[in-house]
Amino acid sequence: MIGRFLSIVAAGFIAAPAFAQTPAKVSSPDGTLTVTVEVNGEGRPEYQVQRSGRTIIDRSRLGFIFTNAPKMERNFEIADVQVRAADTTWEQPWGERRFVRDNHREMRVRLTEKTALKRSLDVVFRVFDDGVGFRYEFPDQAALKDVRIGEELTEFAVAGPATAWWIPALQWNREEYLYGKTAITEVGLAQTPMTIRTDDGLHIAFHEAALTDYAGMNLLNEGKGRFRAMLTQASEGPKVQRAAPFATPWRTMQISDTAGGLVTNDLILNLNEPNKLGDVSWVEPFKYVGVWWEMHLDKSSWGAGPKHGATTQNVKRYIDFAAKHGFRGVLVEGWNEGWNDDWFANGEDFSFTKPYPDFDIEALAAYAKQKGVRLIGHHETAGNIAVYEPQMGAAFDLYERLGIDAVKTGYVADAGGIQVRRPDGGIGFEWHEGQIMSRHSLDVVKEAAKRKIAINAHEPFKDTGLRRTYPNWVSREGARGMEFNAWGQPPNPPEHEANLVFTRMLAGPMDFTPGILSLEGRGQPIQSTMAKQLALYVVLYSPIHMAADLPEHYEANLKPFQFIKDVPTDWSETRVLNGEIGDYVTIARKDRKSEDWYLGAVTDENGRALSTPLSFLAPGKRYRAQIYRDGEGADYKSNPKSIAIEERIVTSADTLTLNLAAGGGQAIRFVALR
Amino acid sequence: MIGRFLSIVAAGFIAAPAFAQTPAKVSSPDGTLTVTVEVNGEGRPEYQVQRSGRTIIDRSRLGFIFTNAPKMERNFEIADVQVRAADTTWEQPWGERRFVRDNHREMRVRLTEKTALKRSLDVVFRVFDDGVGFRYEFPDQAALKDVRIGEELTEFAVAGPATAWWIPALQWNREEYLYGKTAITEVGLAQTPMTIRTDDGLHIAFHEAALTDYAGMNLLNEGKGRFRAMLTQASEGPKVQRAAPFATPWRTMQISDTAGGLVTNDLILNLNEPNKLGDVSWVEPFKYVGVWWEMHLDKSSWGAGPKHGATTQNVKRYIDFAAKHGFRGVLVEGWNEGWNDDWFANGEDFSFTKPYPDFDIEALAAYAKQKGVRLIGHHETAGNIAVYEPQMGAAFDLYERLGIDAVKTGYVADAGGIQVRRPDGGIGFEWHEGQIMSRHSLDVVKEAAKRKIAINAHEPFKDTGLRRTYPNWVSREGARGMEFNAWGQPPNPPEHEANLVFTRMLAGPMDFTPGILSLEGRGQPIQSTMAKQLALYVVLYSPIHMAADLPEHYEANLKPFQFIKDVPTDWSETRVLNGEIGDYVTIARKDRKSEDWYLGAVTDENGRALSTPLSFLAPGKRYRAQIYRDGEGADYKSNPKSIAIEERIVTSADTLTLNLAAGGGQAIRFVALR
Repeated sequence: MIGRFLSIVAAGFIAAPAFAQTPAKVSSPDGTLTVTVEVNGEGRPEYQVQRSGRTIIDRSRLGFIFTNAPKMERNFEIADVQVRAADTTWEQPWGERRFVRDNHREMRVRLTEKTALKRSLDVVFRVFDDGVGFRYEFPDQAALKDVRIGEELTEFAVAGPATAWWIPALQWNREEYLYGKTAITEVGLAQTPMTIRTDDGLHIAFHEAALTDYAGMNLLNEGKGRFRAMLTQASEGPKVQRAAPFATPWRTMQISDTAGGLVTNDLILNLNEPNKLGDVSWVEPFKYVGVWWEMHLDKSSWGAGPKHGATTQNVKRYIDFAAKHGFRGVLVEGWNEGWNDDWFANGEDFSFTKPYPDFDIEALAAYAKQKGVRLIGHHETAGNIAVYEPQMGAAFDLYERLGIDAVKTGYVADAGGIQVRRPDGGIGFEWHEGQIMSRHSLDVVKEAAKRKIAINAHEPFKDTGLRRTYPNWVSREGARGMEFNAWGQPPNPPEHEANLVFTRMLAGPMDFTPGILSLEGRGQPIQSTMAKQLALYVVLYSPIHMAADLPEHYEANLKPFQFIKDVPTDWSETRVLNGEIGDYVTIARKDRKSEDWYLGAVTDENGRALSTPLSFLAPGKRYRAQIYRDGEGADYKSNPKSIAIEERIVTSADTLTLNLAAGGGQAIRFVALR
Repeated sequence: MIGRFLSIVAAGFIAAPAFAQTPAKVSSPDGTLTVTVEVNGEGRPEYQVQRSGRTIIDRSRLGFIFTNAPKMERNFEIADVQVRAADTTWEQPWGERRFVRDNHREMRVRLTEKTALKRSLDVVFRVFDDGVGFRYEFPDQAALKDVRIGEELTEFAVAGPATAWWIPALQWNREEYLYGKTAITEVGLAQTPMTIRTDDGLHIAFHEAALTDYAGMNLLNEGKGRFRAMLTQASEGPKVQRAAPFATPWRTMQISDTAGGLVTNDLILNLNEPNKLGDVSWVEPFKYVGVWWEMHLDKSSWGAGPKHGATTQNVKRYIDFAAKHGFRGVLVEGWNEGWNDDWFANGEDFSFTKPYPDFDIEALAAYAKQKGVRLIGHHETAGNIAVYEPQMGAAFDLYERLGIDAVKTGYVADAGGIQVRRPDGGIGFEWHEGQIMSRHSLDVVKEAAKRKIAINAHEPFKDTGLRRTYPNWVSREGARGMEFNAWGQPPNPPEHEANLVFTRMLAGPMDFTPGILSLEGRGQPIQSTMAKQLALYVVLYSPIHMAADLPEHYEANLKPFQFIKDVPTDWSETRVLNGEIGDYVTIARKDRKSEDWYLGAVTDENGRALSTPLSFLAPGKRYRAQIYRDGEGADYKSNPKSIAIEERIVTSADTLTLNLAAGGGQAIRFVALR
């Protein structure tokens, strides 16, 4: 081994050497956060983040390994630094709040190699008072045109001990794991968002924004709280291949003293580009019912046969129910040819235009229309995009013709399970979060947008805020949803949703499909009280929400069902009133179309009394609070159905004590009175 | 998400479901270890390991993801099970012991898919009393001929809490990290060998054997002590591409109650194939000196110029010194054209046949021969095998002609730093432990063998025991060697060698280059006493050892130098008398050519008195013990050069107390008396 390698050699376990060049610095608008970029004695670029003078992200490396060129990791100098300020406010067509403020300082650092190649790489930081985002920009230059990335060497060195809430990035599955809570030193390879809380109480969520035509980033534990980007692999090429000039996704850190501060943090949206679709008034938030839960109860099947769920007759029943109770959408799964016995292993037989004979799609679309309801389309691909992509155009054309303006897509496939068509015509198997899927996912959304169709992706490519740029990308799954309560081993525990709010939900809306008022899964109980099922419509943000239970179960519970009928899915304001990761959370949201507010609170396996000031309500205004709370002796194990529904008049001066049962919750509608 | 996925879905955090088929079982010859292979309700194959009835490796998955075919992970049934016994003893041409016993039970389990493809995969376990090895064998079958592996899904689930000694598998560097000691739950992505000690005192070393034409295996922490294979990536292809039929490397677990038991464990060698080179009497263990340490002291340079080290005059000095003191070899680095200023960044200028003008290779080879000494060749590639491979044949021809029968190769390049020639003629950048390097490394050894040349690889591809099959592969680096004491920040700490013995050294011989009696690095002291420098020749096994210090430093320390002159590098027996990972170790080895024994003991930063029975000596025989011990007040910090050299007569009935200073050691030669 040779001397000049020494600091790389030992990097796994030693501190960085002394620095050679004057650091580039930028602080957030109010000075809370400061980012410093330096190159060390070997010309290795590193950044760090201070908060109120304290280092929270220690010296962390920047760089790339290429598969067709020497890596860019050291021998750099800072050739140029540009800082600019921006403070704008923009409006969401739909969302958890109407107006979003984007107030940041941007620092662009040009790194240029001192070696013969003299290549340049820009790293651009945007520093907000409550978070930091940065990305790499590859300029147009002769020495690096065909950029083939073997690995991104970005580090995130957490300063000091912390606890992490995370799911692993393994090969067994996509995102559908229970969230683990460990010391950050016990994280292996984590998916993002990964949320941590330092021992002194600071919350940081690591994720990315505007991930397009690039591989998803996972976080590898390098030891001692230091994480490194590990991009999702491509099975037979570089992890990422792009033509310069281009920019990587933003690497993001949402930073807050409180857990709730992460939820109301707009960093991810602000780092995405504005709406590229023009007039998107055709994208309507809505609620829906559908032929879905009955399959998870094993009462009916996706595939043809005696138990087939998507029959004309059965779907009519759902349409009638939707019309009667004011739901816009009716989802129908298992409507199309191809659900063979091992469909999930290959998806090769799927037709996306050919309905099963017992499903009269034309008649049902017409019937729905006449009832003021719309069918919701379904494209389950089993991850076989080689079969799906050639049919996509025709499939969306069919839906457009039938007035079906929302489609649920599905990619039930693990790592190595995404079937693609290779350039040579052969079949390939790719990873779920690789560059190929980032392209495919956006292609689907663009194809749909051409026909004014909204997309709700399940087993999706990870959400990085692209809904701002493509507002027809209304929702996704991307975590363990309600179906795991039907048959999951273990089922989602009571803490699950209190984990989701501070992890998965930071990425964007989730189509969790709540509202199982029967509280019964497939031979196992739902780990929730009835009031909690109502609260989820407020706690878990999505512009589309399903009333997932069977119609007969709602008919049998009309009083609590009223809240599901009332609750909107589009908001002008959102406030997190209290909350701790994995324990509990209370969120209040204001209806986008009225002066009404809605509140949802959920807890884990522990009952709680949450003293909750109503100061979010308009001062002086009187509201009729329609309260759906855990009833006498309610408990998710022994007495989940005990619910109390009551009304009282309140003002912003009042404080409510929300009594949540173990595994319970509470939902309140605040009707603004004249 | 769909129900049938549930157990994969939740696998990250739940126990495996009930099993469906009767398990296949095999026990080691004396019954200590038992391996069980089962397929669960989903047809997922899993194995576990019991030791004396206690589970030590919990249910762990087996399988593969392919880039050109559906993965093989579940839907299997056990189609056939064959068990056979073997008990043989074979002789090493050279080694740490002459005779090696291979006593195991083998279980071959044929797994066949129940799905349409009906593909088969064999998993073959060899169970020894002190370890387990298993590998996959891909049979010749129509449905899987071109095997392109995206990932190997092999798991190692450690049952119960344990401590791990490991180095990270990052992109910064190859193997040259300091060993970390953490809870196994704090391992991120580890290189192998990774050694663990369970809280109840069992030692397990995870590694692999017979790694040829495959990617190196790293271990990813999945959480809760569960590790999964993560193969080193190929930059623009599948991680591994092979034509069936073929077998993977063996995945190995060396298992022992004592740390020392790992060192005397022959599992890795036994799982490699016998010598394929025929008569290898031409492979001679030896000791050598050379033009090397002076570069690390910055007294001379590799490249041409005023400080050039490899001058005819300077090398003559080393030849004379070697002849005078009985060293067979003289290594000369920096002898060839191409050591330009940033050679380590590309290696593009290297010639492997063109000496610098001031290095008369012909005259020196002749001069050496006449003095009864041989030059040792040097091929530093900087990882640029695109430049090296075309020159390799001619380079070895040159050495053969000059009677140079040992070559030190070098691959100073990190991940993404191995430059290869793509099939299309372009340049590519590959990982250090990928399939391409496994091929290259063996190609070099075979090319050398054709000319009766031995290979000592630095910055090598990991050692997996191939020295058994190719005995001219005499040694490697593959860890932080002595040069880190010259300039390392930090330098190797006193515990370093006590870590190496129980981790890196389990893979095979290491060319550590000890013997720095001056105890001086480049402006920093060696973290060692003088006695410890001597002990390393016994403690660290290698058939070739360097006396790495400058000739003048040896001339100034002739008394301690005597041990370095005496100590052999080939042994008939090896005993570990005591030791704990990272703390201390005492090893006794018997000279292959005489009745003499040699003992080496080293400690970490703590001084120790090790009571050491000499029962390894031949009963009744008298030996003159030539003892080189830490002297009065010796201490690696304050008084490293204090050494006491004394003689006494001992027998196997005696017990010596080895008094080791802080950072110290002891070396003893036991001369068998008539």
